[in-house]
Amino acid sequence: MLKKYLMAPGPTPVPERVLLEMAKPMIHHRTDEFSKTFAEASAGLKKVFNTKNEVLMLAGSGTAAMEAAIINTLNPGDKVLVVDAGKFGQRWKNISKTFGMDVQVIELEWGSSVDPALVENFLKSNPDTRAVMIQGSETSTTAYHDIEAIGRIISSRPDTIFIVDGITSIGVHETKMDEWGIDVAVTGSQKAFMLPPGLAFIALSEKAWKFCETATIPRYYLDLKRELKNQLESTTAYTPAVTIINGLKVVLDMMLEEGLENVYKRHQINGDATRAAVQAMGFKLLPTGTPSNAATGFYLPEGFEGGKFVKFMREKVGITYAGGQDHLKGRIVRVSHLGYHDAFDTIVAISGLEMGLSRFGVKFQMGAGVAAAQEILKNYIGE
Amino acid sequence: MLKKYLMAPGPTPVPERVLLEMAKPMIHHRTDEFSKTFAEASAGLKKVFNTKNEVLMLAGSGTAAMEAAIINTLNPGDKVLVVDAGKFGQRWKNISKTFGMDVQVIELEWGSSVDPALVENFLKSNPDTRAVMIQGSETSTTAYHDIEAIGRIISSRPDTIFIVDGITSIGVHETKMDEWGIDVAVTGSQKAFMLPPGLAFIALSEKAWKFCETATIPRYYLDLKRELKNQLESTTAYTPAVTIINGLKVVLDMMLEEGLENVYKRHQINGDATRAAVQAMGFKLLPTGTPSNAATGFYLPEGFEGGKFVKFMREKVGITYAGGQDHLKGRIVRVSHLGYHDAFDTIVAISGLEMGLSRFGVKFQMGAGVAAAQEILKNYIGE
Repeated sequence: MLKKYLMAPGPTPVPERVLLEMAKPMIHHRTDEFSKTFAEASAGLKKVFNTKNEVLMLAGSGTAAMEAAIINTLNPGDKVLVVDAGKFGQRWKNISKTFGMDVQVIELEWGSSVDPALVENFLKSNPDTRAVMIQGSETSTTAYHDIEAIGRIISSRPDTIFIVDGITSIGVHETKMDEWGIDVAVTGSQKAFMLPPGLAFIALSEKAWKFCETATIPRYYLDLKRELKNQLESTTAYTPAVTIINGLKVVLDMMLEEGLENVYKRHQINGDATRAAVQAMGFKLLPTGTPSNAATGFYLPEGFEGGKFVKFMREKVGITYAGGQDHLKGRIVRVSHLGYHDAFDTIVAISGLEMGLSRFGVKFQMGAGVAAAQEILKNYIGE
Repeated sequence: MLKKYLMAPGPTPVPERVLLEMAKPMIHHRTDEFSKTFAEASAGLKKVFNTKNEVLMLAGSGTAAMEAAIINTLNPGDKVLVVDAGKFGQRWKNISKTFGMDVQVIELEWGSSVDPALVENFLKSNPDTRAVMIQGSETSTTAYHDIEAIGRIISSRPDTIFIVDGITSIGVHETKMDEWGIDVAVTGSQKAFMLPPGLAFIALSEKAWKFCETATIPRYYLDLKRELKNQLESTTAYTPAVTIINGLKVVLDMMLEEGLENVYKRHQINGDATRAAVQAMGFKLLPTGTPSNAATGFYLPEGFEGGKFVKFMREKVGITYAGGQDHLKGRIVRVSHLGYHDAFDTIVAISGLEMGLSRFGVKFQMGAGVAAAQEILKNYIGE
């Protein structure tokens, strides 16, 4: 018997209630039955995004929504600022370059959170910047950027929009799209929304919808104006990912039953506990700025073969952690707190690290990580 | 109790074995476990497409793959020929126009199958045509186009590619991509592949891959060269639709266990039986050329309110048929034979038509449709 524990920052475990919902016989998408589910899911998404605007659903992965954010609002030659502090910052850069933007970059060490003043100063010197792109949580480094502060800086500028990849922040950290001045917010189904991958979400502010009016890059599948027209009537321009949307309705029911504040608090506590644990074991956290509550990354000892450890844990022990990407490959481990993840999942994640790393010859006081996590978690269980 | 029967041409019923496979706990996509499933699914797809080239999987609906077909192979200003004989022919036209092609059209009455000589003559007069686009089966009219004959015409022309929307023909009618000279073949998960929507497939011939070398339209999410590089190593550029791909592996096992020849024959027999039935009931078939075995469309009596009938059948009787689109709205009914559909599903579909239309006051000999279908089906049951 090998029980499986999915502890990587996406895809995340799907609750049994949602698996069973999605295992129901297929239904047709051009029906009142589906439109009702769609409308309910849509209303729930608005609550999570904290927006009065439509949150559009696209059949595709998060990258499709990132591309949609750019090609629907900007034009070739537009000056854009990308905060690049990890693999997904680089994705904003790559997509923008693909479509001919004039890409300016604030490049940071992996693990950093950007100082909002850097963005403010850039915009003062470059008032012709059409968009600022960033991650809420940079999944590759498990660092969080202060999108509230940056949003408030950009919101006073009528000719600049703020585009946020919230793929591992929305549903994890409270995100007040409208109040903070986020103009385009993007996320996907397989993170905080606890669903299989294949469904992406994107919401635009009124300012961003105005940008769409002058955006000339040809688009068809990812044409957001066409989707808006359809989705306002609780349908989609093209065949939607019916099953995942049916699951989404159940997920949103679960999140709203728990209470969004409690969802965010749960991620915070599991993040705090994991950070305390890996530090008690003597490891250095990867985030040097604000840590994200989506996942916790930490450095392995110098010369340790991280790839072998992650593979052993996944194949022989049953726990799927994430390793590092690009230059951090083999050098870090990332432990997810995303979605359907409780205090005891955190204990399992840390216990797996302790027993596994110990077998791989790493020295630390056995049990120190679990104990440190328990000191935090004990205050919340049974509440 | 209201049992549900999904008889519209997509989404189609998903076999229980596949629903249960997809209800298993989520797995991570960057693992040997998933890559093994991916590789097996990929090998199965090649058998259905009859191609030695890769069949790429994209997280998106069929329209995403249609757009990918165009933007990866063609350039703005390219002369393209679209065979427009229904709603999905129009989609080729719309996507091509969106990306600036010089769109030439062979426009046909809805229900017709194109005469391949029309395409041949066009290409003789327009040797600079870069692509011909068509549907294998035009879902809106249930007519089949002779893509083999057209493929053979185009295959001798090195500067013209043949792009086929096989969304309701691949897996229904035998499709020999390589032998017939199809350069780009596209389909989706929710038709013959008996899966939920959200996964699209696209395969390119060597000739089409050469066209990609000179194609300049910017593309990121739908960049097929990047996908090819990844998918040759049994992974994907962006997070794939994990659940549906796991289901695909099971579907392909089922199709190959049945034998592809038997799959096609089953669609043929259910199509023949349904066509015989609706004609025995006195209705006129919508296809005037070659009927598709994906679905059967027929005209309702003049003045009959088709929309009300389809709604009544779906909501009160439990059978989801499809009505007509655009100018055929309310005037036709389409009955699907796609995917997980056997002889008795055909009987249910026809019996539903007989009892339902009779209740709506349409006159015909009760039982004539079922009897006509049975005369055909009886020769195959138990074989």
